[in-house]
Amino acid sequence: MAAKKSKNIYFFGGGRADGNKDMKDLLGGKGANLAEMAGLGIPVPPGFTITTRMCHIYFKNRRRLPRQFLEDLHRAMARLERMTGKKFGNPSNPLLVSVRSGAPVSMPGMMDTILNLGLNDRTVRGLEKLTGDRRFALDSYRRLIMMFGDVVLRIPREEFDKVFEGFKARAGVKTDVEVPPDVLADIVEEFKSIVQDKTGKPFPQNVYKQLEMAVAAVFLSWNNPRAIYYRKQNNIPDDMGTAVNVQTMVFGNMGDDSATGVGFTRNPATGEKEFYGEYLTNAQGEDVVAGVRTPKKITALKEEMPEVYRELIKIAQRLEKHYRDMQDIEFTIEKGKLYLLQTRAGKRTARAAVKIAVDMVKERLITREEAVLRVDPHVLNQLLHPVISIDAEYTPLAKGLGASPGAAVGKVVFSADAAVEWAAKGEPVILVRKETSPEDIHGMDAAQGILTSRGGMTSHAAVVARHMGKPCVVGCEELEIDDNRKRFKVSGTIVNEGDFITIDGSTGEVILGQLPLEDPQISGEFEEFMSWADKFRKLRVRANADTPGDARLAREFGAEGIGLCRTEHMFFGEERIGVMQAMIMAETTSERKKYLDQLEPMQAEDFEGIFEAMEGYPVTIRLLDPPLHEFLPTAEEIKKSIEEEESKDNPDRDRLEQLRKLLARTEELKEFNPMLGLRGVRLGLLYPEVYQMQVRAIIKAALRCRKRGIKVTPEIMIPLVGIEGEISKMNEMVRYVADALVKEAGIKLEYKVGTMVEVPRAALTADEIARHAEFFSFGTNDLTQTTFGFSRDDSAKIIKTYLEYSTRCEKCGGELDESFTCGTCGGTYSMKPAPILDTDPFQTLDVSGVGELMKIAIEKGRSVRRDLKLGICGEHGGDPASVEYCHNLGLEYVSCSPYRVPIARLAAAQATIRAKQKARQDKKTSKKKRKKRA
Amino acid sequence: MAAKKSKNIYFFGGGRADGNKDMKDLLGGKGANLAEMAGLGIPVPPGFTITTRMCHIYFKNRRRLPRQFLEDLHRAMARLERMTGKKFGNPSNPLLVSVRSGAPVSMPGMMDTILNLGLNDRTVRGLEKLTGDRRFALDSYRRLIMMFGDVVLRIPREEFDKVFEGFKARAGVKTDVEVPPDVLADIVEEFKSIVQDKTGKPFPQNVYKQLEMAVAAVFLSWNNPRAIYYRKQNNIPDDMGTAVNVQTMVFGNMGDDSATGVGFTRNPATGEKEFYGEYLTNAQGEDVVAGVRTPKKITALKEEMPEVYRELIKIAQRLEKHYRDMQDIEFTIEKGKLYLLQTRAGKRTARAAVKIAVDMVKERLITREEAVLRVDPHVLNQLLHPVISIDAEYTPLAKGLGASPGAAVGKVVFSADAAVEWAAKGEPVILVRKETSPEDIHGMDAAQGILTSRGGMTSHAAVVARHMGKPCVVGCEELEIDDNRKRFKVSGTIVNEGDFITIDGSTGEVILGQLPLEDPQISGEFEEFMSWADKFRKLRVRANADTPGDARLAREFGAEGIGLCRTEHMFFGEERIGVMQAMIMAETTSERKKYLDQLEPMQAEDFEGIFEAMEGYPVTIRLLDPPLHEFLPTAEEIKKSIEEEESKDNPDRDRLEQLRKLLARTEELKEFNPMLGLRGVRLGLLYPEVYQMQVRAIIKAALRCRKRGIKVTPEIMIPLVGIEGEISKMNEMVRYVADALVKEAGIKLEYKVGTMVEVPRAALTADEIARHAEFFSFGTNDLTQTTFGFSRDDSAKIIKTYLEYSTRCEKCGGELDESFTCGTCGGTYSMKPAPILDTDPFQTLDVSGVGELMKIAIEKGRSVRRDLKLGICGEHGGDPASVEYCHNLGLEYVSCSPYRVPIARLAAAQATIRAKQKARQDKKTSKKKRKKRA
Repeated sequence: MAAKKSKNIYFFGGGRADGNKDMKDLLGGKGANLAEMAGLGIPVPPGFTITTRMCHIYFKNRRRLPRQFLEDLHRAMARLERMTGKKFGNPSNPLLVSVRSGAPVSMPGMMDTILNLGLNDRTVRGLEKLTGDRRFALDSYRRLIMMFGDVVLRIPREEFDKVFEGFKARAGVKTDVEVPPDVLADIVEEFKSIVQDKTGKPFPQNVYKQLEMAVAAVFLSWNNPRAIYYRKQNNIPDDMGTAVNVQTMVFGNMGDDSATGVGFTRNPATGEKEFYGEYLTNAQGEDVVAGVRTPKKITALKEEMPEVYRELIKIAQRLEKHYRDMQDIEFTIEKGKLYLLQTRAGKRTARAAVKIAVDMVKERLITREEAVLRVDPHVLNQLLHPVISIDAEYTPLAKGLGASPGAAVGKVVFSADAAVEWAAKGEPVILVRKETSPEDIHGMDAAQGILTSRGGMTSHAAVVARHMGKPCVVGCEELEIDDNRKRFKVSGTIVNEGDFITIDGSTGEVILGQLPLEDPQISGEFEEFMSWADKFRKLRVRANADTPGDARLAREFGAEGIGLCRTEHMFFGEERIGVMQAMIMAETTSERKKYLDQLEPMQAEDFEGIFEAMEGYPVTIRLLDPPLHEFLPTAEEIKKSIEEEESKDNPDRDRLEQLRKLLARTEELKEFNPMLGLRGVRLGLLYPEVYQMQVRAIIKAALRCRKRGIKVTPEIMIPLVGIEGEISKMNEMVRYVADALVKEAGIKLEYKVGTMVEVPRAALTADEIARHAEFFSFGTNDLTQTTFGFSRDDSAKIIKTYLEYSTRCEKCGGELDESFTCGTCGGTYSMKPAPILDTDPFQTLDVSGVGELMKIAIEKGRSVRRDLKLGICGEHGGDPASVEYCHNLGLEYVSCSPYRVPIARLAAAQATIRAKQKARQDKKTSKKKRKKRA
Repeated sequence: MAAKKSKNIYFFGGGRADGNKDMKDLLGGKGANLAEMAGLGIPVPPGFTITTRMCHIYFKNRRRLPRQFLEDLHRAMARLERMTGKKFGNPSNPLLVSVRSGAPVSMPGMMDTILNLGLNDRTVRGLEKLTGDRRFALDSYRRLIMMFGDVVLRIPREEFDKVFEGFKARAGVKTDVEVPPDVLADIVEEFKSIVQDKTGKPFPQNVYKQLEMAVAAVFLSWNNPRAIYYRKQNNIPDDMGTAVNVQTMVFGNMGDDSATGVGFTRNPATGEKEFYGEYLTNAQGEDVVAGVRTPKKITALKEEMPEVYRELIKIAQRLEKHYRDMQDIEFTIEKGKLYLLQTRAGKRTARAAVKIAVDMVKERLITREEAVLRVDPHVLNQLLHPVISIDAEYTPLAKGLGASPGAAVGKVVFSADAAVEWAAKGEPVILVRKETSPEDIHGMDAAQGILTSRGGMTSHAAVVARHMGKPCVVGCEELEIDDNRKRFKVSGTIVNEGDFITIDGSTGEVILGQLPLEDPQISGEFEEFMSWADKFRKLRVRANADTPGDARLAREFGAEGIGLCRTEHMFFGEERIGVMQAMIMAETTSERKKYLDQLEPMQAEDFEGIFEAMEGYPVTIRLLDPPLHEFLPTAEEIKKSIEEEESKDNPDRDRLEQLRKLLARTEELKEFNPMLGLRGVRLGLLYPEVYQMQVRAIIKAALRCRKRGIKVTPEIMIPLVGIEGEISKMNEMVRYVADALVKEAGIKLEYKVGTMVEVPRAALTADEIARHAEFFSFGTNDLTQTTFGFSRDDSAKIIKTYLEYSTRCEKCGGELDESFTCGTCGGTYSMKPAPILDTDPFQTLDVSGVGELMKIAIEKGRSVRRDLKLGICGEHGGDPASVEYCHNLGLEYVSCSPYRVPIARLAAAQATIRAKQKARQDKKTSKKKRKKRA
């Protein structure tokens, strides 16, 4: 038969199925899974799937369903009637079906669904009799007309909502379920007149007509603008098409022997291997969602319907074993009969994800490779930082960028000094600033968390907070901070110094008051899981750490070295900043050297501690990078001090003179664009004595360690190099100073000299630079700044706008409404415009621009130095997508803040596994191709 | 004979020569030219050249001269004796020779020379008798010992200088020539003992020994560190070797029938075709240099020695014709006999260069191609701007960077307002500022010239001044400007407001007082010359012009369009800045639009004027680029105004409120790095109404021109694009606004939409960007800033240090002395270290970095749009080396400030010719190679 040749309807139910889970291309994801369950003998409401092939035919056939197919469809309904013992369109025992789309890949929220199809003015009365529930029957009919009107007839949903809300108001009820049956009857009549008014035709009473129209509408939805846009965004081919699932409706609200519920095959919060679920007797799925009644624990079902319970547990276990993952299932019990409506991989907490992955390996359900891929690296943050309790209910006051994960509660303070003062009294505080600067570090250190109204993901506050592992929200532009009055305003609410707030550094939310927090819990499974990840990964993971304490923390998190030790933070200590400032104020080289001599032993002590903590792992130390004025007070502050002194009765002449000198030097050092000014290697070349002091401190510390029998691997890193001469001279200078000390000590000490690649020119001339550098460390923060021309401190607002630009009109820049119409110029769009940026390039490495420069640098660098050591020490080192890119680029290591080390370790493992899988796949494909050609 | 086979000594003199000018590889440049002159029958003191081949043999033979060669050398001296009638080492008529190096390519200052060789204790008395001049004879001997000691025996020159200065002091004389003969005799004895002391051997009295040692020393000098370094720097192969020239000494101080002089075959100042020279009777070359006696005009020689004069003129004409260029010659008349000692291309002024080139074409001496190559484009500045009079003598007070050519004289003022005020009274002023900002433009306009203590070649002052064609010196760091006291201090001198200074924007010199200036003179030859250049060049030359006046000026200088019309400058007009500020202060889009509507007709009027001036040539208009805060007063200024208002008896409450709002907005707009902040297309996307207003103004102006029958070619340029979405959205927006107006007008109007490529990401993703841009204009100023990570406003000091870094120790950064010894750490260098930068990348395009990005952009851009129009509008568009690079990259045009247009035109022509020559050469070479292979 011709029909056999191109079978377009696949049945499932009654313990059998025409399809299975591997037929997603033809049956869509949903259809294939329903078939799979049916094939396994699991009770699913019977039904059939119309293939994606028919979707193509529909579009080719000028958007008409072929006559032959319609005949098949009628025959399929007849078969369904036989299977269920119900009759489609028959009032005495009406067969009701759902019609749902289901594409081969998940396209959430985009596809359409119609429930209760088969109801009309006559069958609704049959349903009423059958269930003895007039309200339920009428409500089901009301819903059908509304969904059908919306999806099939394209009547704006608001038309129905408006009427419904009107009736509710008049009836004086709040929730849908409270609407009395008589009112529902009126609503049904009103809904039918809407259909008549808007389409000129009555709501179809012929149930086959309903079905045919519904199927056609689902096919048509494949090419609605939203779907086209979604496919374009997600690289889904347009010619894939969608399948349509027609499935018998089952009802859990047909008496006390009926119920509906959801469940997880394992505890989604803890990962414990136990069936975890909830249900409601005599209820429908939506009742669970609406929250009018409190669902019962699944254990209660054991008492109420012991047999059904046993069956449910058995099915759940079977599904999990079959799908080899924790399943989230939906079920309905209709008159004592259990039906599975859905199964899919279940969402879980980080803790559960890790435990489940580890347990399943032990149960020999999955391999270690699979286990490692099962946990999203991002969620590890949950394991490492406190989070807002799951039970807490709240409405955020404002939302910024989640810059450093974890939640914190504290009293608002507006200055670093206040933070220190309050914290000393035992008060938890949140430091709220427009932006932070190096002078705020002591305050950040004292605070529970940091909140700023400006700055992006790599602003000072964000970088330092991540580094400290402290919750931080930045760029919260809604906040109007008034430092003088010690308060901030946000959409009408005023928050004063001392008021409690809670911030969530993962979501960027700011909440008024104290929310309950939950501490992180690191389980034994976590250690085991990470040890597997470590075995797979090729990339080394180092940490960015500036102090011995940081270094120890980094080791605890599994760092295999320090990729970036910023020496400047060491100068901000209380007893050091004064000497540093004196050094900057020095007018001659010899005077400057005097102060440098004082700083040297302090730095050496720090380095010794860091080397000790790292136990021989490589430690990359970056020589002084920031512009000198960062170590001085601002001109404003000095002017204020001068005024204060002058207004005294007996002003201190010497102090005034000093302050004036300080002011002059500050103004001399002032730069228009400090980011592009006198910093990094430029400082080292203009004031060589500063770098020389640092090199001496490093080498002396290393030699002292060696004397104490501690292994050390120092790597001296020159920042901001962009010209061959900079690194060639600096390399010579560093080695001259270092070798003299090593020779004097008579101890063998190996060290490396390398450079950061953080301006485009360094990448473009990497062949020249690699001649003088043993390693490159990509400073992707600065490289992103210079490649885009984005200042990280000023770009938050721009990037935010760019990420959200899909809501703006491309013609006049006005705001678009939901139907993609511009509120300003009235222009309409057939699809939502694209955003300008998909991701914040300071969070996830920009592959096309910055990544391209990295490629150029690697290629040119290795062309002159084959064993060039390559790493990355920008913030991207802790971002999973960026870590994967770094793996594929062939870097040797990534470096990130200590708290992100586990994330990077896992991401690196996943990158390796995925690359291996891809290689296998590519091999297969090319084999196939070869075969085809042969 | 074996000796013939490898001839190593080439004679010249007596009307014959073994070599000629084309044998530079073997005889070196000097030897070949001497041979050439001799071959032409021009009297040169006879001598011979030892080949570069012998240089190789010398090094291969372990730095010894082969015995066979020494025999040849003795025979050669015997031949020279026969030719001159003098005897080498014979006191009665001693033959004296000079021994000079001469490599195939010029290596100035690096090679060694020994004069008066052949003198010893006996021949010196012979010379005394012969000349009757004891002082001369002894002085010649003294010089020989000194030069021989230095060059051959490697005794530090200071040893001799010390002794000589000691004797002079004791004798109470100041100049060398005043030293009496008896003292000279003592000096000679003392010099001889230095030789004995330092080498353990006496000064060689055997003249052949002198000669052999001198020849070996010259060969050896080929591999002295300085020479190796120079070759490395200039890509000269190490295996080239040097030749040695042994030439009879002639003396112009043998009586009144002797003389010495120099001359040019044409007037080097004006280019007039007339022999131009000076001479001294009875004198030596060094006497002319020492300036003790005033030389006579060459015309006097006509009277004194008419025959010699005629011969000299004849020779000069012959040499010029032969070398096909104006010659600079040195001659000596010894006892009535004329000798030519040197001929080379003569240095000349710009005016002379142009006239000579044009005249020589008319005389059919050279082709037009050659003529165009003869003038250095840089020197055209001399023709277009006033210069300090050649006769002026002065010592500069300070030196900065010559940022905009031309000299200016004026009274010092310290504020833009003062400049305007004083200028209104008819006073010429020089505006002196730490740096300038857009708010200073009216003052810069009123001033004769601008002087700043900060900023580099592309700082605001520099760019605007060049643009105005106004002399400007920037980055004069020595100046300590005290705005409050209205004065500046520089190395002890205090210059007050109202004091006269002169600045030279070409050299960067600042001079106290009024120097005489000379106005530029454009000759008829110049027009003709430029018309030839225009015929050769492929690159179009456009100008950067912002006003109708600028546009007209640009046309006068030969611009073929506007490559960059900066729309922001239009907003600084007195009646406009207020509206602009109100627009920035607007709190709603509709309020902002109100002010934009006021600005629109003003912009349209400007554009109409510019289109009119450009007569259909393309006009590239850049939409608003700078950050908004540039249009507002600074926070400091507003605070001052607030204080002033508050201190009044009756403060104006409304004004205070307004000022406070202004302050708040200014602080809101404040950015850490404005260069990398909210500007360019980012502004256009955040405030689309601003760009829309500008597009309307452009299109309306163009339509109005069309109605008046004027051709227009507008090109709308979007600045700072780095992301595809930026240009795709902006392109759509611009076209939407423009097309609506064009349609409404019903007039056909073509326009282009394109982008500036000025951040690295634009170049790296040029394939994505070119999809939405019809043209790229390389904004190499900003591209240089972002590629290097150099802020143009802050980098002057860094770049200066980098350019001069060759004087710094690579080990400790200390200052090196002349013998490459570090004053700080005592480290010694065998050669001078290299600078970090060879040229200022803001002046001359950085080929390795920025140029690489341009290449990437061109390749990727053209891969998606074959007819992509390419140009450059950075400051580099007026730099000859950069213009040549742009030609080779295949750009369509360069754009520069109007005053630089002629320079760019000439540079573009030269680039074309040189590329053609190179192609011809390459063709020849590959032909040869093919022949060889065949």
